[in-house]
Amino acid sequence: MKSVIGKNITLALYGESHGSAIGVVVDGLPAGIKIDADFIQHQLDMRKPKGKISTQRKETDDFVITSGVFNGYTCGTPIHITIENKTQRSGDYQPNLPRPSHADYAAHVKYNGFEDYRGGGHFSGRLTAPIVAAGAIAIDILKNKGITIGTHIKKCQHIEDRSFENFAEDIAICNSKYFATLDENTGTQMQQHIESIAADCDSVGGVLETCVLGMPAGVGEPYFNSVESVLSHYLFSIGGIKGIEFGCGFGFADCLGSMANDAFEMDDGKVVTKTNHNGGINGGITNGMPILFRTAVKPTPSIFKQQDTVDLDKMENAKLQLKGRHDPAIFHRARVVADSVTALALLDLLVQHFGERWLAE
Amino acid sequence: MKSVIGKNITLALYGESHGSAIGVVVDGLPAGIKIDADFIQHQLDMRKPKGKISTQRKETDDFVITSGVFNGYTCGTPIHITIENKTQRSGDYQPNLPRPSHADYAAHVKYNGFEDYRGGGHFSGRLTAPIVAAGAIAIDILKNKGITIGTHIKKCQHIEDRSFENFAEDIAICNSKYFATLDENTGTQMQQHIESIAADCDSVGGVLETCVLGMPAGVGEPYFNSVESVLSHYLFSIGGIKGIEFGCGFGFADCLGSMANDAFEMDDGKVVTKTNHNGGINGGITNGMPILFRTAVKPTPSIFKQQDTVDLDKMENAKLQLKGRHDPAIFHRARVVADSVTALALLDLLVQHFGERWLAE
Amino acid sequence: MKSVIGKNITLALYGESHGSAIGVVVDGLPAGIKIDADFIQHQLDMRKPKGKISTQRKETDDFVITSGVFNGYTCGTPIHITIENKTQRSGDYQPNLPRPSHADYAAHVKYNGFEDYRGGGHFSGRLTAPIVAAGAIAIDILKNKGITIGTHIKKCQHIEDRSFENFAEDIAICNSKYFATLDENTGTQMQQHIESIAADCDSVGGVLETCVLGMPAGVGEPYFNSVESVLSHYLFSIGGIKGIEFGCGFGFADCLGSMANDAFEMDDGKVVTKTNHNGGINGGITNGMPILFRTAVKPTPSIFKQQDTVDLDKMENAKLQLKGRHDPAIFHRARVVADSVTALALLDLLVQHFGERWLAE
Amino acid sequence: MKSVIGKNITLALYGESHGSAIGVVVDGLPAGIKIDADFIQHQLDMRKPKGKISTQRKETDDFVITSGVFNGYTCGTPIHITIENKTQRSGDYQPNLPRPSHADYAAHVKYNGFEDYRGGGHFSGRLTAPIVAAGAIAIDILKNKGITIGTHIKKCQHIEDRSFENFAEDIAICNSKYFATLDENTGTQMQQHIESIAADCDSVGGVLETCVLGMPAGVGEPYFNSVESVLSHYLFSIGGIKGIEFGCGFGFADCLGSMANDAFEMDDGKVVTKTNHNGGINGGITNGMPILFRTAVKPTPSIFKQQDTVDLDKMENAKLQLKGRHDPAIFHRARVVADSVTALALLDLLVQHFGERWLAE
Repeated sequence: MKSVIGKNITLALYGESHGSAIGVVVDGLPAGIKIDADFIQHQLDMRKPKGKISTQRKETDDFVITSGVFNGYTCGTPIHITIENKTQRSGDYQPNLPRPSHADYAAHVKYNGFEDYRGGGHFSGRLTAPIVAAGAIAIDILKNKGITIGTHIKKCQHIEDRSFENFAEDIAICNSKYFATLDENTGTQMQQHIESIAADCDSVGGVLETCVLGMPAGVGEPYFNSVESVLSHYLFSIGGIKGIEFGCGFGFADCLGSMANDAFEMDDGKVVTKTNHNGGINGGITNGMPILFRTAVKPTPSIFKQQDTVDLDKMENAKLQLKGRHDPAIFHRARVVADSVTALALLDLLVQHFGERWLAE
Repeated sequence: MKSVIGKNITLALYGESHGSAIGVVVDGLPAGIKIDADFIQHQLDMRKPKGKISTQRKETDDFVITSGVFNGYTCGTPIHITIENKTQRSGDYQPNLPRPSHADYAAHVKYNGFEDYRGGGHFSGRLTAPIVAAGAIAIDILKNKGITIGTHIKKCQHIEDRSFENFAEDIAICNSKYFATLDENTGTQMQQHIESIAADCDSVGGVLETCVLGMPAGVGEPYFNSVESVLSHYLFSIGGIKGIEFGCGFGFADCLGSMANDAFEMDDGKVVTKTNHNGGINGGITNGMPILFRTAVKPTPSIFKQQDTVDLDKMENAKLQLKGRHDPAIFHRARVVADSVTALALLDLLVQHFGERWLAE
Repeated sequence: MKSVIGKNITLALYGESHGSAIGVVVDGLPAGIKIDADFIQHQLDMRKPKGKISTQRKETDDFVITSGVFNGYTCGTPIHITIENKTQRSGDYQPNLPRPSHADYAAHVKYNGFEDYRGGGHFSGRLTAPIVAAGAIAIDILKNKGITIGTHIKKCQHIEDRSFENFAEDIAICNSKYFATLDENTGTQMQQHIESIAADCDSVGGVLETCVLGMPAGVGEPYFNSVESVLSHYLFSIGGIKGIEFGCGFGFADCLGSMANDAFEMDDGKVVTKTNHNGGINGGITNGMPILFRTAVKPTPSIFKQQDTVDLDKMENAKLQLKGRHDPAIFHRARVVADSVTALALLDLLVQHFGERWLAE
Repeated sequence: MKSVIGKNITLALYGESHGSAIGVVVDGLPAGIKIDADFIQHQLDMRKPKGKISTQRKETDDFVITSGVFNGYTCGTPIHITIENKTQRSGDYQPNLPRPSHADYAAHVKYNGFEDYRGGGHFSGRLTAPIVAAGAIAIDILKNKGITIGTHIKKCQHIEDRSFENFAEDIAICNSKYFATLDENTGTQMQQHIESIAADCDSVGGVLETCVLGMPAGVGEPYFNSVESVLSHYLFSIGGIKGIEFGCGFGFADCLGSMANDAFEMDDGKVVTKTNHNGGINGGITNGMPILFRTAVKPTPSIFKQQDTVDLDKMENAKLQLKGRHDPAIFHRARVVADSVTALALLDLLVQHFGERWLAE
């Protein structure tokens, strides 16, 4: 129950925001998989802050692979990906004044005052960079197996993007954009909205919607390792995600069974469902339809408005005025992180079923 | 990635709906914990179908503990709890016609036609009975540590229950009722609504809301084993749950940071938050406030209306007319299952922090 | 770190010597494997005490499978195997006088006095019966993949059996006997020796030697999950085993590299080694040669000679005179347990490599 | 079943002999533990090749901690320790000619020809350096809890060291020497013997003996996670170890129960055993006596005598003449690795029992 995840493809994550480096050890990938360094860098770039809608801390996020890759292919042994921290400005942080809705106070209790508080330490969103690098490899492997993943920004306050329609095309649209909405105008509106919120020293939340196309039926486990269990476990690893729903999700509460059930039918010799209210998962097992889920991302807790907090040294009420560099919204950057952990989670389930040899076939 | 869960307190679940017995092996509880057999039976009774709002299959659910308990106390070795199946009526099932939105088809692919299809086999809701028995022990242990859990039915279509107000009292209300709503009238309305839906051969979904009071701050892990990750992993083990949100959850998408942040303040020498939009969890770690989450339960897929399906032998479209005994709603029975897995998940996290010895202190 | 083992094929063991039942949940076997109940019973019979060289407690060890098997084939869900305890005679045990070299005292400290002390409780050799039942299924699966396992009694004090020569034939000899020696006369001598030791109220230890034929090269992991790591982990699960050596084992300490190295050569288009000092494992990975290891089994601690112990109630020195039914030697019964855990360990490693689907192919 | 180990204290190892860096992520240590960088370097120096009895590849093994330590104390988050490779000479290796008794051929099959063959790649003994660095932290923590570990070279061919007598003093002797024998003359003889074997282009094996003093009684688990199971799992992670025996080990095969049993007696109000044939472990659980075990280390497979092998490209017999830098013996360097994994294994078991908070108390 620690900073390690995965049964077949294991990630061990490390690093602090203002330490010398962050990184991840990816264990369990078979030998013989071509590593596309450009795609890894592309995905890291998709996670990077850009423009006025993101933090002004700009890291180059140049990654280095120090092991597990030989002559451009995985050699079957653990892959270590590391990213140097270069632009730390630790002076901006006051350890005695926990930032509301950040990990500061909870970490202070858990780590008994020994936590690295600088820039949120281990809890910093920067730690998602190595996850994205590892995820890029997973996304690439899945693509070779005909499985594609796309996430768009479904909602930011009152502004809503359209839903997935043509899955293959829409996934391609998601993956072609930094600020990924399916509808172009919606994206422009959302970005303008975020800018105006940033100007007001505030931040804003949103909803992401993810689609996975091409997953074979019959993957996952009943009960304790249902596809929903495993995906949600990975997705709630991303700081700021506070909700997940599969298929109709909370909408099921408004439904009768006769409306919600996905009737089967034959389609060109293949069993499909007429609707996909269950988001491609029945009884915790994939049914061959697209996997669909939405995740709720809370507003960045770091805002420039003055806030109430406590002084942990004096144990008395205090005021907090944040300085530093912060994101007025993170869902557009969390999007590629969601794709990454989704790919890693599904890869783990697929290896259980097909064996590690299968990945490299 | 199988039918085993837990790092410190491990559950190994087994059984099929129409096999001879179902059960669970609970490993990791320390010696010296008093086992309250009456409370286990009470919790099992809370899960049992009752009245017109539930299936007419009535099992007594008499449990037997065959190991791990000696002279009324845990002896530190694995506890095996088993429940006999007595009222199987396997004639009701047609293996070639998968029931829409059930596990039938996905299981058929996964298990290559060897699945025990009778009554849903391993996927049957009956398998939650041993989970409830194990959970009863966990709930009891937590209670001794001052941690209490309650779940009520927040919503069934248009009918909504009030939210938690006075946590201690409201948790007591939840635990005192079979059909658990905080508002008495709302409960009556919901039950009448379910009955009318049952009369119409249909089923209905709902939303559960759970509160955990008394969790110490500082429990959980960053990233891969955040409290949200671990709780959601356990909760999505329950068939029919398709969504979970912590604190404001999907409501965060409508929020600005200035509205969503939970400011800290001193309360009688203790650090608390003025609001609890984050549901007691910051950065994946408990902050000492009540843990709050909601889960979406889909309508029971088994309905008595005729449905479209496919014939897996002939690989052609077919019609399905279900017979047998089915629940028009399951959220009122799932409620105690939600409490059970919540207790088991939190116990596992607490043992990581405090050690297994602590449980028996 | 509990009574659960296995990553892909998981065992959860439960039971006490004088409880109502002992059993195991086997999780992770794919659907479609034919279950040979007669072979399971045959293996259980191989573990049963027989004649004067074993305890006089005679249990029928009739096993019941309550889940996971449907129409004679695995259905892909957890298999629960249970065995009733029938001939308990708990009056024979004095909880305050720990038996030397038994688990009694260590368990007393670990479980804080709450342990089930009757007949050794959970630590009783009886618990190996469910392991043998589970192992029988594993042995059967491996046999279908061309992998066979045999263990003989290599040594009992001064009496030594010959080593493996013709592997296939010798494995067949091992599996055809209750008291398994490769040389018939040696077996007779050993049994007479044990009888005379039993007549003298004493017990005796021995060495087992195991061979696995047919393992493909390339299975296992470097470092933390080397084949030696995984096999030894399983084998030291068997009470009374206190040593293991692979290939030349401790004999390597007398060797120069030039004597110990296994030179490669081509044999009918296949890479083999001229010698097999490494017991089929190089760098933790199988090399395609037979896996060979020896395990040391200590003398049964239960002897009928008077022994020194302490009185845990009075905390003073005391004398212990055992009554009850005990084995003067256990290695002949441990033999089938060694085969069982070897099969389960190798199956787990093979599934990692080839995937669970492969097992049922 | 991969390059990750530990349930509570997890190690994720990475690196290849001729890659840019090797390292380990240590997860699960609580916050507030003082890190003694000098002791880590001291332990790494104990593992380094020195003099004529070791390889001439001399790495400085300067380690860097890039995360998890803040102001000299653990901050509770994963610790990443990395060591740069500086003196690679990859030209020395011929990938088509597998070295007898090395991992080369097994790895070639496992990794399908994609393995990094340079200097043994991931299988190189260099990978034990990060394990030693992690182990140094574990040894330090145990020392603060009154638990000390020492390993000496018990045997090298015909030359034998004396056994442990005064445990505390002898452990101190072990830890004060690079070539650790309890008897000074024996050590000199062994080193001369190794030098003469090296001069003859050969290598030699040996036996290590380890003692752990101060482990509390009651730690470990019955069956699948016995102390023997867990320790052997870790120890067989060290390349070249091919046997382990606890207490009398294989000597038990020559014993009667009346000779082998460890009688209990009271000693100054404490329960002890008069003898310690079981090496401090009964039924898989510590009994409070010193833990004692011996491990067999095979001769280094790399020798400068010509050897028979096969050509994997041409699939025909071939001759191999090794060049490069190799150790004529490794047991003297493996000694500190044995201490390291022993400390890590015991720490994991202790945390299970006492909780992670206890470590930092």
